[in-house]
Amino acid sequence: MIQTLAIVGVGLLGGSVAKAARAAALARTLVGVGRDAARLERALGDGALDRATTDLEVGVRGADFVLLAAPVLAIEALLERVWRAAPDGATLTDVGSTKAGIVRRAEALAAGRPLAFVGSHPMAGSEQSGYGAARADLFEGATVLVTPTDRTEPRALKAVTGFWEALGARVSALDPEAHDRAVAAISHLPHAVVDALMDAVARFAPEALEFAARGFKDTTRIAASDPDMWADIFLANRTALGASLGAFRQALAALEGAIAGGSREEIRALLARVKAAREALR
Amino acid sequence: MIQTLAIVGVGLLGGSVAKAARAAALARTLVGVGRDAARLERALGDGALDRATTDLEVGVRGADFVLLAAPVLAIEALLERVWRAAPDGATLTDVGSTKAGIVRRAEALAAGRPLAFVGSHPMAGSEQSGYGAARADLFEGATVLVTPTDRTEPRALKAVTGFWEALGARVSALDPEAHDRAVAAISHLPHAVVDALMDAVARFAPEALEFAARGFKDTTRIAASDPDMWADIFLANRTALGASLGAFRQALAALEGAIAGGSREEIRALLARVKAAREALR
Repeated sequence: MIQTLAIVGVGLLGGSVAKAARAAALARTLVGVGRDAARLERALGDGALDRATTDLEVGVRGADFVLLAAPVLAIEALLERVWRAAPDGATLTDVGSTKAGIVRRAEALAAGRPLAFVGSHPMAGSEQSGYGAARADLFEGATVLVTPTDRTEPRALKAVTGFWEALGARVSALDPEAHDRAVAAISHLPHAVVDALMDAVARFAPEALEFAARGFKDTTRIAASDPDMWADIFLANRTALGASLGAFRQALAALEGAIAGGSREEIRALLARVKAAREALR
Repeated sequence: MIQTLAIVGVGLLGGSVAKAARAAALARTLVGVGRDAARLERALGDGALDRATTDLEVGVRGADFVLLAAPVLAIEALLERVWRAAPDGATLTDVGSTKAGIVRRAEALAAGRPLAFVGSHPMAGSEQSGYGAARADLFEGATVLVTPTDRTEPRALKAVTGFWEALGARVSALDPEAHDRAVAAISHLPHAVVDALMDAVARFAPEALEFAARGFKDTTRIAASDPDMWADIFLANRTALGASLGAFRQALAALEGAIAGGSREEIRALLARVKAAREALR
């Protein structure tokens, strides 16, 4: 059991961890760290947090487990201060959507002061954001990717894996670079493509939007995601995203070529391949 | 009330019309026309149809209202035979996803033999297909676009509008070309983009698919649509789709440019604009 769990950033993910950790009695004391005291009040008021502070050092100082749940570039920027403030023996993890940059920074800091860090990425986001959208069951059945390297202490990996499993998640390990390539393909590419789709229709054919049906709405749901969070993600993972976008452009050109060529059979075969791939997802 | 409603093509849409028309007691007799007698048996067995035939002329001959519910290129190909077989005074409509080609063909036929035709497009599809997916409430609250022209008889427009409203739909009228541009933007472009997205990920990063979360699944749901139906749609509407794809490519290039340029504020502003557009959809 964790004595003091410090959660830095009490939004959708951090707030959901607080609620889920409370429900699972995973930590004796839950401490929230945020920039806005008024927003932290809500999590204190409903009992998800025991204490809250806007002072990062105060929040992290007595914690044996620290979760960084800020946007991805903010996590990178906070890491040095967290590293200095956390007590010896503390376990650190985060929820950043890209991992290579954060893990690289953490390992540089660990060369100076050994602390048990493993990167995490809970695949349990939402187009919603903020503590108001936090749910105790957000991680129930979700996948959390953890990103150990050959420098990761086994006890840190065990602690972080156990943490997410206690919140109901299934944990898989990937190295940070493989993680970033994978999420570029299944998360960042779809966001970029859907953002461009929504933008194109809203600018090119706004009068058509009144006829949009369920297919369009489901497809574009993720276009309502938090702009700050996604600006960070796109920047943090731009190399891997660029490679995914290249693959997408090729696939789109193949479909357009088949349509322009007018071969019904060629289009049909391509769409049948796509349908089979989609149906192979659970 | 319709005396004899002939439904040509008893799949998802035709079958749903049969069930909904039965539930609303909209027609005295419901006749289904299909290519496969065994498949028609099911709709006879559950009472959605009174009669079924694989002979188009036999099915259409005695009908005062004929609904063509085949894939869009098949409708164009069938129109001439339907025109010859339908009795004087019959009202004709269809469910084709593109309208300019069908309406043009119908108006050419009407120059030889006046029959009351108005094109329809119920925006109530699904990634499912076939009679097994048909539902009596498929049109409840759905939008049906009808596409009269200056050659359309007012009584035909009134009959077809009333038909869909009796099945629970909201009806809007657009001219056929405006319809095709609108659905290119809100339906055909999203399908093409999502097909390419699913194809790119399945070929470029198949190992990542095991980590796909709800966002990816919602976004790509329409990639499981019927390949035959969509090959037809892409071909039938390739001009308007090409224009929409051009707008999409511009929007994607703008987003990629902002990411490559590394300006967080530029990316954030673009994503905020996209979020606002998505949230403006009901």
